Amino acid sequence: MTRVVCAQLAPRLLDLDANRAASTAAVEVAVAGGADVVVLPELVTSGYVFASPEEAATVAITAAHPVFADWATAVGSSGAVVVGGFCERGEDGRLHNSAAVVDATGVLAVYRKVHLWDREKLVFTAGTAVPPVVETVHGRIAVIVCYDLEFPEWTRTAALAGADLIAVPTNWPLFPRPAGEHAAEVVIAMGTARLNRVAIACCDRSGVERGQEWTEGTAIVDADGWVVAAAGPGEASAAADLDLTRSRDKSYTSLADAFADRRPELYAGVVAP
Amino acid sequence: MTRVVCAQLAPRLLDLDANRAASTAAVEVAVAGGADVVVLPELVTSGYVFASPEEAATVAITAAHPVFADWATAVGSSGAVVVGGFCERGEDGRLHNSAAVVDATGVLAVYRKVHLWDREKLVFTAGTAVPPVVETVHGRIAVIVCYDLEFPEWTRTAALAGADLIAVPTNWPLFPRPAGEHAAEVVIAMGTARLNRVAIACCDRSGVERGQEWTEGTAIVDADGWVVAAAGPGEASAAADLDLTRSRDKSYTSLADAFADRRPELYAGVVAP
Repeated sequence: MTRVVCAQLAPRLLDLDANRAASTAAVEVAVAGGADVVVLPELVTSGYVFASPEEAATVAITAAHPVFADWATAVGSSGAVVVGGFCERGEDGRLHNSAAVVDATGVLAVYRKVHLWDREKLVFTAGTAVPPVVETVHGRIAVIVCYDLEFPEWTRTAALAGADLIAVPTNWPLFPRPAGEHAAEVVIAMGTARLNRVAIACCDRSGVERGQEWTEGTAIVDADGWVVAAAGPGEASAAADLDLTRSRDKSYTSLADAFADRRPELYAGVVAP
Repeated sequence: MTRVVCAQLAPRLLDLDANRAASTAAVEVAVAGGADVVVLPELVTSGYVFASPEEAATVAITAAHPVFADWATAVGSSGAVVVGGFCERGEDGRLHNSAAVVDATGVLAVYRKVHLWDREKLVFTAGTAVPPVVETVHGRIAVIVCYDLEFPEWTRTAALAGADLIAVPTNWPLFPRPAGEHAAEVVIAMGTARLNRVAIACCDRSGVERGQEWTEGTAIVDADGWVVAAAGPGEASAAADLDLTRSRDKSYTSLADAFADRRPELYAGVVAP
């Protein structure tokens, strides 16, 4: 079993030092609790509600920033893997809404969000690379960020590439929903997990930022599509022990299989150009 | 507003006459209740649990069968459109798990299920055509069948083709689910509706057939992804008044749009060959 922990933190806008400390502490706590995979929110190092690209640039970092070394140190000898979002300054100075995959050895991969939500388009440059699928001792961990989850082409891409777990650092703005229902984004995660037969761990955030409230909808979803852990409101964690090997069996019955039953010859030129 | 009615019937296996009468009566009742769109279950004319192709062949019909004329007569001057499943005998004698779109003038379109579930593969030949999107006075109605819903490439195809409503005749075998949760297939419908911003009407069936129980999960889902009507257990109907024009607005905000934010240039060669 793989213990997946999502730490629903409340990043402080533009306060890199505070966020560095808080995110590292969250990794330490998760690892002390036996975490094998720790997922942190989107833009956990920087906060989200930037007024301008110039403001975001003040907290933009590269994968060489010491916050990632801190996470690696916090992982220590546990063997854990951390996935967390950050405001990245690219080689050309452009900003990206990125997520890093880190283990004790350092940064294993960086993914730049491809589907930018709303005003993110005014701040960030969208990524152009497919989600990384990182081979780890705990299985193959794919990374996408927030709104990426709402593009089934993208989650399918990660699943077809062999992901056992899709880690999704998110900042879900709060929207109304009917009583008794999961947040819409969680419903999407559940359906996506179910039809791809892949586990998904969405780590949302907490804390009102420039008036923006968040869903606080952190949810760990198993490969059958059911929520097996949620964080609830506030700064809280969700933890679940998942059998990630189940993500490698796409069969429902001896005659039905989520992947083998695809008809890619009929999809060409329709969902993709 | 468009009144969508799903009639969760209990077809009688191999009894074409009884199913013809029951499905026609259901259309009459729905139309009398103001239905603009009536969705009937998958294979409503034939039942589902065939022992063999030979057995299915005994109730296989073409689009010229009088059951569809009965539905057209039941529609009468109401302007309603009916979508219902049937066991189709193709021109070459092969069997298909199909659905017809019918109005007062007769059969407007026939769709052959592309993704065959489980033992259906032993009975039916899979379709090779994309879902029809039928222009009606009530909007553009697309048709897929049951397991097709679980292939996001396929629902995306229907949505990108301009569907305002995806009608889904289904026979959902009963599976266990956690207390308080929608059926997994309904969760998939909700997520699919949400991320495509399209309404979806799933008409399930009732009645135990050769020991097979059904989810009785009929659900009408709006373009925000919320269940606005369900049938509940037994032979029952779900009815909802939907503003299908909402399916034509894919925007979330002035800077976020479910379709415009797609990155098809990055999907090519990944989800489609």
